[in-house]
Amino acid sequence: MEFVKDLRWNSHSYTSDLVEQFESQGFQSTELFKVSEVMYKMWTEKSKVILSFTSNMVTSGLRGLFAQLIELGLVDAVVTTAGSIEEDIMRAMGEKFPLTRFGADDIELHEKGHNRVGNIIVTNDSYMKFEGVMKKMIDKIVEEKSELTIVEFLDKLGSQLEDTNSILYQAHKKGIPVFCPAISDGAIGFHLYMARDRYPNFKLDLIGDFKKLIFTFSPDDKKGIIALGGGVSKHFALLSTLINGGADYVVYLTTSTGWSGRLSGASTKEAKSWGKVKDDSDSATVIGDVTINFPLAAFRTLEKLHIEARI
Amino acid sequence: MEFVKDLRWNSHSYTSDLVEQFESQGFQSTELFKVSEVMYKMWTEKSKVILSFTSNMVTSGLRGLFAQLIELGLVDAVVTTAGSIEEDIMRAMGEKFPLTRFGADDIELHEKGHNRVGNIIVTNDSYMKFEGVMKKMIDKIVEEKSELTIVEFLDKLGSQLEDTNSILYQAHKKGIPVFCPAISDGAIGFHLYMARDRYPNFKLDLIGDFKKLIFTFSPDDKKGIIALGGGVSKHFALLSTLINGGADYVVYLTTSTGWSGRLSGASTKEAKSWGKVKDDSDSATVIGDVTINFPLAAFRTLEKLHIEARI
Amino acid sequence: MEFVKDLRWNSHSYTSDLVEQFESQGFQSTELFKVSEVMYKMWTEKSKVILSFTSNMVTSGLRGLFAQLIELGLVDAVVTTAGSIEEDIMRAMGEKFPLTRFGADDIELHEKGHNRVGNIIVTNDSYMKFEGVMKKMIDKIVEEKSELTIVEFLDKLGSQLEDTNSILYQAHKKGIPVFCPAISDGAIGFHLYMARDRYPNFKLDLIGDFKKLIFTFSPDDKKGIIALGGGVSKHFALLSTLINGGADYVVYLTTSTGWSGRLSGASTKEAKSWGKVKDDSDSATVIGDVTINFPLAAFRTLEKLHIEARI
Amino acid sequence: MEFVKDLRWNSHSYTSDLVEQFESQGFQSTELFKVSEVMYKMWTEKSKVILSFTSNMVTSGLRGLFAQLIELGLVDAVVTTAGSIEEDIMRAMGEKFPLTRFGADDIELHEKGHNRVGNIIVTNDSYMKFEGVMKKMIDKIVEEKSELTIVEFLDKLGSQLEDTNSILYQAHKKGIPVFCPAISDGAIGFHLYMARDRYPNFKLDLIGDFKKLIFTFSPDDKKGIIALGGGVSKHFALLSTLINGGADYVVYLTTSTGWSGRLSGASTKEAKSWGKVKDDSDSATVIGDVTINFPLAAFRTLEKLHIEARI
Repeated sequence: MEFVKDLRWNSHSYTSDLVEQFESQGFQSTELFKVSEVMYKMWTEKSKVILSFTSNMVTSGLRGLFAQLIELGLVDAVVTTAGSIEEDIMRAMGEKFPLTRFGADDIELHEKGHNRVGNIIVTNDSYMKFEGVMKKMIDKIVEEKSELTIVEFLDKLGSQLEDTNSILYQAHKKGIPVFCPAISDGAIGFHLYMARDRYPNFKLDLIGDFKKLIFTFSPDDKKGIIALGGGVSKHFALLSTLINGGADYVVYLTTSTGWSGRLSGASTKEAKSWGKVKDDSDSATVIGDVTINFPLAAFRTLEKLHIEARI
Repeated sequence: MEFVKDLRWNSHSYTSDLVEQFESQGFQSTELFKVSEVMYKMWTEKSKVILSFTSNMVTSGLRGLFAQLIELGLVDAVVTTAGSIEEDIMRAMGEKFPLTRFGADDIELHEKGHNRVGNIIVTNDSYMKFEGVMKKMIDKIVEEKSELTIVEFLDKLGSQLEDTNSILYQAHKKGIPVFCPAISDGAIGFHLYMARDRYPNFKLDLIGDFKKLIFTFSPDDKKGIIALGGGVSKHFALLSTLINGGADYVVYLTTSTGWSGRLSGASTKEAKSWGKVKDDSDSATVIGDVTINFPLAAFRTLEKLHIEARI
Repeated sequence: MEFVKDLRWNSHSYTSDLVEQFESQGFQSTELFKVSEVMYKMWTEKSKVILSFTSNMVTSGLRGLFAQLIELGLVDAVVTTAGSIEEDIMRAMGEKFPLTRFGADDIELHEKGHNRVGNIIVTNDSYMKFEGVMKKMIDKIVEEKSELTIVEFLDKLGSQLEDTNSILYQAHKKGIPVFCPAISDGAIGFHLYMARDRYPNFKLDLIGDFKKLIFTFSPDDKKGIIALGGGVSKHFALLSTLINGGADYVVYLTTSTGWSGRLSGASTKEAKSWGKVKDDSDSATVIGDVTINFPLAAFRTLEKLHIEARI
Repeated sequence: MEFVKDLRWNSHSYTSDLVEQFESQGFQSTELFKVSEVMYKMWTEKSKVILSFTSNMVTSGLRGLFAQLIELGLVDAVVTTAGSIEEDIMRAMGEKFPLTRFGADDIELHEKGHNRVGNIIVTNDSYMKFEGVMKKMIDKIVEEKSELTIVEFLDKLGSQLEDTNSILYQAHKKGIPVFCPAISDGAIGFHLYMARDRYPNFKLDLIGDFKKLIFTFSPDDKKGIIALGGGVSKHFALLSTLINGGADYVVYLTTSTGWSGRLSGASTKEAKSWGKVKDDSDSATVIGDVTINFPLAAFRTLEKLHIEARI
């Protein structure tokens, strides 16, 4: 039996030491430790791992950590939404996202062409430059091949980037798929629509992606899911395991809880009723902002893998 | 200046009387009253109205109210996710969704083939019958036309249903578009994939839908948004107004708040920084479960429209 | 087995009809219906009922409904915090609380002497008048008796009020206790301190209240708890049942969930581990703003009691 | 202008390095960094500091960190609720609190005498031993002096403990007051009631504490508030600054937001309308579980103070 232990600060504390103190502190800190443990097993048991996240996380600096996990060979597939693709490319183009306050004056921001996402800004200027860059990148892709799956399309975008911290760049380099079933839900939808005007035969084949998804895993694979936030990203990631016998290692990091029936707050326990997660899986959920909880848990797991010379 | 008024129960109280007492009660009840007022203006000012919702709401009995709003001519476009399409069709087929408890034993449910969404069950049996029905409906569609936009595809599905409480059925009857940009994110993705096997030329054109979306409104239209929940549904609905000068009347009903930068909790205030919502728009947000808050606000607005012989 | 039923609006809908439709709608609306049912049993099974609430609810118009429930003989004891006492008296004095917006400019409000509680204002002017009134009321009490329990003290305050919508007034009229263990936590703490200066022998006996609390119920009583919000109010109310064998009928209406170990979000399920709530009790929890959910559930229960000529 | 920077893991990362990366990561991680900065200013600008927390945090291992902050001389007054006093003493007596799961079977726990607080257990056995210990400690206090303020009473309890990780012990050693206005709201209320039976003259003077509270600060002091969680602890802490011209440095760490008017979610911005917080104060709020966010922010601040040889 584990008991609560009192937390103490020591000078020069490592992140991993703090997270290890969390194990016996209680409440969400204990769950965060468990998330770190489940990721450790996921990575040491040679699972195939799907990482899903929402676009606000790519607007934030988590983008760098996602790219790094791919670069380290710890991710086998990514699932996300259109905003992630846009912001990842903008940042790879050198655009910068100013920080602001949560309560900023939005009418004033609108006049400045500053679009707010919580306490982060994406400027109209960035969107305009992005439009130009996208035009060129899409043209290059379509001239070579006018009909692609979304996964192929995103891989071709990634191949045109050069940025260590870019998710698409690292995914291309590692040859892993980036799924984005709702690709049209953003500015990128507009770019696709304009490309269609230029190339009437330009088509994205969403059905083809589904095939790719269900063959990401085989029923024999150990399957791991790291689901950050909810929505389509989380749901589509879980579809891949549902079809293949359920996930073995699952962590959810979310701000939501399950009382309204929304998927964002659906627990790994609920996922068992569906067979998305195996009955005897290792799973953990930690509630709170992912920009805090994911780096904490991941840094500790990475440190442990590093000490064991696994990465 | 408005002041807090003490709430009192009277026997035989009408829903609309209660919501009108909310105006001067404070906290979210006052916001709920404002939502009802903004919807009243939206509908009496002859706006074009987009209704967006997440799939869990269609799993719930809200499905009937959504269908009724379409039937009453109060909705000009719908945006939702794949689960909504699935559950709407299952229910139209006569399938029933058992109610359960939030804390139900999920391993036991899994053994019974009961998939849990909060306190609602969708059975494996329903999914299996759905597969058979979808096969026939998709075959019928594809034999007629093998390449369609998602909006066209959903309209063709709706044309094969016969259920007053069905969203797809009512949307087809009224000739309004149902947008579902992430159509492959669910069991339906699997059905589409299998149809592709039978009909290699079967294609869904997601880019074509974007054109439809941006011509849903013209810049001259008064534009109204009723966004229930978040995710892709909410974001895609707002894209349509962003491109057309911003919405005039906007209500958000959600369980989320904005502190993690997630779109689900993004406020109408934040939307102004983007131009999704006009600076001088009428807008209101009410936080809480949509299965409670939307019927309350909508019933009161409908009652007011009814008394004025507008519906 | 219960199944989801589609919700439909009918013209001239009664609040109770809507809440009864909630039974088979799913998610929190179903829980709200259950709350209404548990209150119905609580009141028809002749339970002794403790009503606990936080002070923000008295700032809102819920004050009127609380007073009405006491007036109707449906409440046997009240537990709350200092702010409730203050706001109840201010309103009974004729003070009005202006409504504002959640995002109001607080520095501007501060300059105007407007103190904000969410979207409600309590003015400095109200606080100043309150100070004068309290001075007289306390003096009158202390000159008669300088050492009282908090329950006695609050009863004496109630005896000096004359307002149908006042909680203290109705509690005094009905002879039911109002518990306020943290009586000093507010402006009233300052008034007590100044009274001590005028009357060095003025003492409030908090220990005496505990005796009163544990004899509110006997182990043989059927015990009902209506806990609105969390904090000291909820905890103290549950103490009374813990000591007397656990509650039989329990409803929680709250905005919180249990993931941080805070009592505000602790479920009736967790309460069973403590014996605060009997293992076989009837209990229900609904999550969301109490200004919406409590009137809805209560109006429906009151209507049912009224139709059966019980009230 | 600050811009988002991509987060990267480096092997052997210090907690303080991670928190410093948070500055430009966005969302709550940026707010957490600000909390750390405000605490740094609070402590280097020689403010008087009130630390308030709820009792669940003392059930958790945060107890050790609170005691350590007092021991380091960084806290001038504590405000909390009855459960904190109880759990602090139980742990000082050597009792251990087992860890469990959030979804544990509560009826089974009840049979074992295991009382659940989230994922932590306090056993009936601990409560029974606590009763015996409290009887002796209270008797010793009352035989010396039968009428005390709550602050004096808690100091006398602290004087009888011997545990580095105990809040009451360290507060006694440092001679700082522990305020607990709702002292009767817990098992301790029962112990006080039984002591009254043994010593009819035993009285706790809650009014006397208010005087102590308002003289904790003078208007000339720089005033700092660290408010962890909400409820009476937070409110009472803020009363002390309200009366003395408002706080200069304020951090809120909470799981709540402000939409229901509850104090737990009231922002530092709202506090300005009351004058609890100065208009030009340094303040920051971070939302999420305090067992994660407070150690993170505090460890980084302590590290910075340590490097500068201030602690």
